[in-house]
Amino acid sequence: MATTKLWTDKEVAVDPRIKAVFDDIRAMRKSEFVNNFWRALANQPALLERTWSSIKTVMIEPGTLDPLTKELIYIAASTANSCSYCVHSHTAAARAKGLTEEQYSEFLAVVGMACETNALANALQIPVDAEFAVE
Amino acid sequence: MATTKLWTDKEVAVDPRIKAVFDDIRAMRKSEFVNNFWRALANQPALLERTWSSIKTVMIEPGTLDPLTKELIYIAASTANSCSYCVHSHTAAARAKGLTEEQYSEFLAVVGMACETNALANALQIPVDAEFAVE
Amino acid sequence: MATTKLWTDKEVAVDPRIKAVFDDIRAMRKSEFVNNFWRALANQPALLERTWSSIKTVMIEPGTLDPLTKELIYIAASTANSCSYCVHSHTAAARAKGLTEEQYSEFLAVVGMACETNALANALQIPVDAEFAVE
Amino acid sequence: MATTKLWTDKEVAVDPRIKAVFDDIRAMRKSEFVNNFWRALANQPALLERTWSSIKTVMIEPGTLDPLTKELIYIAASTANSCSYCVHSHTAAARAKGLTEEQYSEFLAVVGMACETNALANALQIPVDAEFAVE
Amino acid sequence: MATTKLWTDKEVAVDPRIKAVFDDIRAMRKSEFVNNFWRALANQPALLERTWSSIKTVMIEPGTLDPLTKELIYIAASTANSCSYCVHSHTAAARAKGLTEEQYSEFLAVVGMACETNALANALQIPVDAEFAVE
Amino acid sequence: MATTKLWTDKEVAVDPRIKAVFDDIRAMRKSEFVNNFWRALANQPALLERTWSSIKTVMIEPGTLDPLTKELIYIAASTANSCSYCVHSHTAAARAKGLTEEQYSEFLAVVGMACETNALANALQIPVDAEFAVE
Repeated sequence: MATTKLWTDKEVAVDPRIKAVFDDIRAMRKSEFVNNFWRALANQPALLERTWSSIKTVMIEPGTLDPLTKELIYIAASTANSCSYCVHSHTAAARAKGLTEEQYSEFLAVVGMACETNALANALQIPVDAEFAVE
Repeated sequence: MATTKLWTDKEVAVDPRIKAVFDDIRAMRKSEFVNNFWRALANQPALLERTWSSIKTVMIEPGTLDPLTKELIYIAASTANSCSYCVHSHTAAARAKGLTEEQYSEFLAVVGMACETNALANALQIPVDAEFAVE
Repeated sequence: MATTKLWTDKEVAVDPRIKAVFDDIRAMRKSEFVNNFWRALANQPALLERTWSSIKTVMIEPGTLDPLTKELIYIAASTANSCSYCVHSHTAAARAKGLTEEQYSEFLAVVGMACETNALANALQIPVDAEFAVE
Repeated sequence: MATTKLWTDKEVAVDPRIKAVFDDIRAMRKSEFVNNFWRALANQPALLERTWSSIKTVMIEPGTLDPLTKELIYIAASTANSCSYCVHSHTAAARAKGLTEEQYSEFLAVVGMACETNALANALQIPVDAEFAVE
Repeated sequence: MATTKLWTDKEVAVDPRIKAVFDDIRAMRKSEFVNNFWRALANQPALLERTWSSIKTVMIEPGTLDPLTKELIYIAASTANSCSYCVHSHTAAARAKGLTEEQYSEFLAVVGMACETNALANALQIPVDAEFAVE
Repeated sequence: MATTKLWTDKEVAVDPRIKAVFDDIRAMRKSEFVNNFWRALANQPALLERTWSSIKTVMIEPGTLDPLTKELIYIAASTANSCSYCVHSHTAAARAKGLTEEQYSEFLAVVGMACETNALANALQIPVDAEFAVE
């Protein structure tokens, strides 16, 4: 179930503003597949444009972090936030970018460990060491 | 403030079980500094041993993800969980492992973007695309 | 799936304590429809009564915030908490109270922005400005 | 403590890219005060520009939700995300936009109620009613 | 810092509505100490009364769960929600109710384990077993 | 849907490393049923072994907290973390360990109350009382 309708390709085709974003998604990703996230955001044209523009800047434009590392950071946050949709979509993206089973196992161990020690540090309300301060 | 006392080096010195873990932390990290997280866990010897053993396995033993990538995954989860202590300690660790300001900027952009789209996907309750299923 | 059984109208009808709450829900909302939240809480009569009484006070009694604003606040918290049920039920409630698509788009933009900057502020552990203190 | 340095006005003054954003913040808000959030983001010029641009679009440009309602939505998400900085800054912003004590009391009651029922719905894993589906 | 003022005993003394709640808190707890949570809520009389009434019903009235177990459940939720204030106050309350260091160690281990496996289950998006359904 | 494949008993049978863990799970729990959590972790042998070993230590080995109390702590954290899988599996486990409807009602009331007051304390940013400090 969703709290909003998902736009079909037919509906997208007759709305030039939405179509422009969908065309760009397909071009940038070199794939005909456009996932439901964008079909839901199509109800909010300004938000759709701004979100896609940010995703291009943050996730697609080349930088100093490689694309797979970015996906793992994305899944870690999505896991801690319990976002089922983003965990699914970015795990699929990570696999498409070459994530191996061994890397995935290590990723899961790190995320699990982080959430466990987050709980311990929050339960114990441990004061931050002066050594961690940025001078 | 903390909900537990933090062990001083003097107190650690006279408790062989705790001392063994602290000695190992210092040896593995090649540093005399032992941060408050371990000084708080010293009140729980079994949990201290198990947590340090897991951290060694997950964060220190070589694998297929490089140490800096693991730290970024750790900070991403800690950020989403609002764990002030772990954000501080693992950002310091990432810097010690060579995190550049440019990498940190990209990391922040990815984490921010992830949390924003997590909110959008959760608010819209977008159904997971069949394409993301593992066959 | 649920971790508890959902009470049918037939079962409610023969339990005077539960029936009294369901009758009041129907009267206050001027609708025969009683959603699953209450059908699940019917297993806990005291909690059912106390929760419905609070909802009436907080969400239905007139005050200085209009009913639609209250629903948007409710959805914002439910989104950040990843509560699928409450996001669905309160988005439906907001629409029933007149939420327009344009208002919904702006709401989504604000919630997304809030969660993004929450992540940035938590990752950077930014100290609160003295100017924000309540004198 | 912070995981990053905060830029002083002196440092901002000699960096044209950062100065341009700070000048715009001061102009848009009609105030000399620039809070720590922006002083921290100044280390990440691209992220600073993109975040300020989004905040202007989402929080300042006129739309169908009034500015105070947007602040309440912002605080609700920040509360659920345990973001101390954003709770402080946006509560101050809400007060500057006219939030009365009575409105604040009602806001707190709604956020508390939302988080309580989020917990109940998540603990009971209540299935979403078919009636909430968007046709 | 707080986003609201904290009421002193002097201020409470001259407001009969707030004084009645504070008197009841002192009587029920058999202690002159009233913690900041109630001093902050004093700005919202109706919310103060409703919250204290609920706390009495839920945490103080005798039932089938013993008082210490209730405190541990409370701290577990507060830890996962990163609520520094509630972690502090309810850990102090648990200790006042007899929590031993050994019990606290086991509690920490369970909370840490829960948060770790929550992360694994959320990352892997594991489908719920049919065996867990309530018939 | 899941982001990983679930191992069948047939697949487990021909992998000695995985089979050893599954045999131990069945022996410790005195039941043939092995739930999906372990069938998903089977893709990560080292993580599977470490997680099962921790669960045995934390949840099964006798200590000072009784097994039902541990399950309630587990569900409280899982609820606050919105982990649908863990809420389902540990509520089933709690029932198997004798959780009564009355205890469950009280548990739900405590978790709901905790999450409500967590929100209030986080929204009000209430300073921790000096009285809660560990000397």
